[in-house]
Amino acid sequence: MGVTAALAGASGYAGGEILRLLLAHPEIEIGTLTAGSNAGQRLGALQPHLVPLADRVLAETSAETLAGHDVVFLALPHGKSAEIAAQLGDDVLVVDCGADFRLHDADEWEHFYGSPHAGTWPYGLPELPGARELLKDTKRIAVPGCYPTVSLLSCVPAFGAGLVEPDVVIVAASGTSGAGKALKPHLLGSEVMGSASAYGVGGVHRHTPEIRQGLSAAAGETVTVSFTPTLVPMSRGILATCTAKLKPGVTAEQARAAYEAAYAHEPFVHLMAEGQWPATAMVYGANTALIQVAVDERAGRLVVVGAIDNLAKGTAGGALQSTNIALGLAEDLGLSKTGVAP
Amino acid sequence: MGVTAALAGASGYAGGEILRLLLAHPEIEIGTLTAGSNAGQRLGALQPHLVPLADRVLAETSAETLAGHDVVFLALPHGKSAEIAAQLGDDVLVVDCGADFRLHDADEWEHFYGSPHAGTWPYGLPELPGARELLKDTKRIAVPGCYPTVSLLSCVPAFGAGLVEPDVVIVAASGTSGAGKALKPHLLGSEVMGSASAYGVGGVHRHTPEIRQGLSAAAGETVTVSFTPTLVPMSRGILATCTAKLKPGVTAEQARAAYEAAYAHEPFVHLMAEGQWPATAMVYGANTALIQVAVDERAGRLVVVGAIDNLAKGTAGGALQSTNIALGLAEDLGLSKTGVAP
Amino acid sequence: MGVTAALAGASGYAGGEILRLLLAHPEIEIGTLTAGSNAGQRLGALQPHLVPLADRVLAETSAETLAGHDVVFLALPHGKSAEIAAQLGDDVLVVDCGADFRLHDADEWEHFYGSPHAGTWPYGLPELPGARELLKDTKRIAVPGCYPTVSLLSCVPAFGAGLVEPDVVIVAASGTSGAGKALKPHLLGSEVMGSASAYGVGGVHRHTPEIRQGLSAAAGETVTVSFTPTLVPMSRGILATCTAKLKPGVTAEQARAAYEAAYAHEPFVHLMAEGQWPATAMVYGANTALIQVAVDERAGRLVVVGAIDNLAKGTAGGALQSTNIALGLAEDLGLSKTGVAP
Amino acid sequence: MGVTAALAGASGYAGGEILRLLLAHPEIEIGTLTAGSNAGQRLGALQPHLVPLADRVLAETSAETLAGHDVVFLALPHGKSAEIAAQLGDDVLVVDCGADFRLHDADEWEHFYGSPHAGTWPYGLPELPGARELLKDTKRIAVPGCYPTVSLLSCVPAFGAGLVEPDVVIVAASGTSGAGKALKPHLLGSEVMGSASAYGVGGVHRHTPEIRQGLSAAAGETVTVSFTPTLVPMSRGILATCTAKLKPGVTAEQARAAYEAAYAHEPFVHLMAEGQWPATAMVYGANTALIQVAVDERAGRLVVVGAIDNLAKGTAGGALQSTNIALGLAEDLGLSKTGVAP
Repeated sequence: MGVTAALAGASGYAGGEILRLLLAHPEIEIGTLTAGSNAGQRLGALQPHLVPLADRVLAETSAETLAGHDVVFLALPHGKSAEIAAQLGDDVLVVDCGADFRLHDADEWEHFYGSPHAGTWPYGLPELPGARELLKDTKRIAVPGCYPTVSLLSCVPAFGAGLVEPDVVIVAASGTSGAGKALKPHLLGSEVMGSASAYGVGGVHRHTPEIRQGLSAAAGETVTVSFTPTLVPMSRGILATCTAKLKPGVTAEQARAAYEAAYAHEPFVHLMAEGQWPATAMVYGANTALIQVAVDERAGRLVVVGAIDNLAKGTAGGALQSTNIALGLAEDLGLSKTGVAP
Repeated sequence: MGVTAALAGASGYAGGEILRLLLAHPEIEIGTLTAGSNAGQRLGALQPHLVPLADRVLAETSAETLAGHDVVFLALPHGKSAEIAAQLGDDVLVVDCGADFRLHDADEWEHFYGSPHAGTWPYGLPELPGARELLKDTKRIAVPGCYPTVSLLSCVPAFGAGLVEPDVVIVAASGTSGAGKALKPHLLGSEVMGSASAYGVGGVHRHTPEIRQGLSAAAGETVTVSFTPTLVPMSRGILATCTAKLKPGVTAEQARAAYEAAYAHEPFVHLMAEGQWPATAMVYGANTALIQVAVDERAGRLVVVGAIDNLAKGTAGGALQSTNIALGLAEDLGLSKTGVAP
Repeated sequence: MGVTAALAGASGYAGGEILRLLLAHPEIEIGTLTAGSNAGQRLGALQPHLVPLADRVLAETSAETLAGHDVVFLALPHGKSAEIAAQLGDDVLVVDCGADFRLHDADEWEHFYGSPHAGTWPYGLPELPGARELLKDTKRIAVPGCYPTVSLLSCVPAFGAGLVEPDVVIVAASGTSGAGKALKPHLLGSEVMGSASAYGVGGVHRHTPEIRQGLSAAAGETVTVSFTPTLVPMSRGILATCTAKLKPGVTAEQARAAYEAAYAHEPFVHLMAEGQWPATAMVYGANTALIQVAVDERAGRLVVVGAIDNLAKGTAGGALQSTNIALGLAEDLGLSKTGVAP
Repeated sequence: MGVTAALAGASGYAGGEILRLLLAHPEIEIGTLTAGSNAGQRLGALQPHLVPLADRVLAETSAETLAGHDVVFLALPHGKSAEIAAQLGDDVLVVDCGADFRLHDADEWEHFYGSPHAGTWPYGLPELPGARELLKDTKRIAVPGCYPTVSLLSCVPAFGAGLVEPDVVIVAASGTSGAGKALKPHLLGSEVMGSASAYGVGGVHRHTPEIRQGLSAAAGETVTVSFTPTLVPMSRGILATCTAKLKPGVTAEQARAAYEAAYAHEPFVHLMAEGQWPATAMVYGANTALIQVAVDERAGRLVVVGAIDNLAKGTAGGALQSTNIALGLAEDLGLSKTGVAP
């Protein structure tokens, strides 16, 4: 194992998932682990599921502690990544799981994040047309958001093949780990269990511009996006229901064919057999996205449903998949295609 | 208590919820309880939460066993209700929780249910314009489906006030009790917990024509409906996310005003304070529907989120509310406005 | 309605449940509601399920704001109750849902709570032998803890009838609302869902001396108690598994007979039919305790399983039941015997 | 990969988990998959999470279809294993995940299973004293039950070191997958979610004699076992709370030392740091058992809490660990030490 990796943000959910995956990765050695307020603690006290790393002690997050590794994973709050990344050398592969470098449009960034735009890095969704070329040999990767990952995998083939009008409605049901470990009342187990709720309604969720950017690129024109996230009682997983008006004359067969063509050779996107529909448990812990398509003739709409694990394919798994590409390793190294179910 | 009620289908979830509510109703006495294959069993063995009725023994479902009551609640599979109802006298109030008498259009019925249309009864959603007039003194009530209940309560004011174009997308997350007690593999706890899944995608769910019927009536023109139900890991509750294109010039203030006007005097529909969003746990066991609206200016859309308890307001509670009206009782008798939360 | 009630601690889970029950109580009017750091807020922002009280504004908790009511419910942190209670008049019925006045033994109190003992009030578990006499006309009620409620209801008949040796093991699985609304990482939904965990192991949980006190009183000798609480993925409910060695010659029939005798006339304790076992969902939101007993001949043990809703019978429901007695009202007024299930 | 494996019972939960683990095993190739009533179906329709095997078609379970492999895993109902195993050659490694060959005592077998005793095979719990010797080069492995696995790992060191009296109480909270995929009403998601329940109370659960056998062997005398299983709302995981009276003079330090000594070199048993307690999510999908011990001085008891994933370490993971030993492979090959959390 010639490759070493450091991780900033080891006490959060994204950081924990990166470590879980790296423990199973045959070519990457886990180096320094850092944290903010949790620096100095044993990892075992914060991430007790990472048994083999229980006695690792977390360093303070800084360019110094992160230096000296081939790869640095950043699992930090928005804004923090750009600050650290600026101090890391150009020869280090920096993989940012935050939002700082995802958007091309500085105005969109500032509208949604309220801070100056830090720049744009190659976007770590290898399944997008042309993405693997940009990721190969890159030293900077912007890992997509979890909602954009499932939304783009669900919708890009439809826009790429010209099946639908450029106006899409996406309603996504997410597990609570997507909201992170922040101590907020509505995230308490007592509140979450037995309850589905909406939040970020009306186009205000920060992943909205990222979805719009990806779909507009696929469509070759601006796509209008209505995105509503909901919280449902599970720890992991996103189920996205996406629908857009069919262009005149598009048939169910054409729709299915477009998706088959798009994903026939993708290792981590699986178009389900006809009659089967995605469920998030099927991809629990896996780097797989499950997709199914239907045509609603009466409503004149294509309906696409996609399921991912928000922490795996939606964050850490996607990050590692792109990292494998950037390092010239087999793209699926250390990544499971199989969900932990039931 | 002069009013007695019989219930057909006492071993299912809808039947159990009717009994739970009747136990708290001060004016209705619980009479004969019937079942199909469970006839002859103690209710305590089938519905152990109904402690005060534990020793009741279920009779066979038939017009004979149900006779001699003021009200008969039918919580039966589709098709069975019409058969039984035909044998019950015109002087008995028959409240059908099934679908048999909900649709006006015989073609729609036959397309979705595959059997001859039995007719149409007054539709038991009192909050619809004009509904209370039809329910008053009626002897026949068709209780709405759970998805139509939350969809219509969420969307009718928008169509009634002319806020939106006649093309709506509804994605609803439902708890598993909506699927009933049928023993199907995908409804096992092991499959359901930790998992969100889609089903009935592409406009094929049987509640679609019922939603279309209600919204078209409100809009005064045919409304195109794209409806996708999803299953999320909870026993009860539906969260519906509904969106339609705003008509030109409609503002957020106008939208809110339309909902305030529609629901200011409704005892069981609560427009939430601005900034708050519905969660299904807030209405667990209650007859309340919670609604919130937002305008997404970039997408040019109204987004409405509604939450109900599918067994309470969505079935048994709605049934009892309409029954109260038909019997000339206070509409809210025996019905809670307060969810059991957390 | 001649009786008015104030509530201190309206923003917590216990306080919320008291309000939910009072809303359905025909003889008690809800007066002042107070809070600590949440004073000044709308109740609707904190307890959105209490729809009819959404616009109530919380006052600061103090003897002044609570004055002028017939009943004052205290749902406060340990220590705070005694402080407030000392300032409330002797003519007011004060019902403390906290621990301050539950224990007789000052040493036990100080060992487990680390503060001076405030005294002992009549213990609000009406099903205990002699309890109703003490509660009748009292002006002070110490509401039992949730674990002691289910443990005592499960075990007291066995000790009262001399069935078992004075050495009991109790393992209880609790929903998370028992831990309150405190923002602690292990109570986040992401941590709780899909996970059962132990805590307070080794006799250190504060409810242990309370269980010991109640069982010793029933046995007429000191009972050794091994109590282990566990947290399981649900909001509400406690399932307690209790076992003690049978005294020589005690039969299964004698055991069942003792429980039948103890609970035949209790409105809120239900000994299940033979072959059925308690489940917490059966009493969701109800004031009912479900009990079942078995004799394990090989192990020479009695095994008793009890289920309650920790917030209802285990806190607010139990409080209201005792309040009804103290006020001379029907004991079951405003209290449901029926769980909200499924 | 020189080793090929067949699996009988590929459509159940145990079978599915074996396949999930074999997919990640570098030395075992997945051969024939068989089923009973599901023979002829695509695996993708039954186990959709096993994406890489979606197009495998299930053969009929028989000695013929299973022949020609180095290893045969049996994930069959009790009784079926013995029938098939008798027809498989002595040169094939047969790994039975059922109960048929676990018990030494034919009377115990017949008492609990009601059929003739088929025999006894080497018991696949490598952590038991002497177990690895018996497993090395064996051609027959009886995989332990899930409750015995966690119970024995939790208690054997205490009995082995003579810390406690031979009378133990074990209360275990299990996820629903332990009950398998059988379509029973109480296993429906609607019934399971939000509910903890007891079953098999009073020493009647079939895993009781297996626990007694293992603990008695460790203690060198007959151990009395009181075992109560409970069902809690999660798909996977068992949390076992175990307690026995301490022998006179045994200290907390001695207790901890005994467990440290027992598990210091075990790859899959992790004694947690002091102050931390096991939670089942920490071992979700992992082959790890987490253990913690406490001494309750007042009750004079040792309390041990253990957590495993019932399908992983409790069934398929344990099976594979023993298989690795029997095949002379590294014991941890293809087995994760890290839970999928949160």
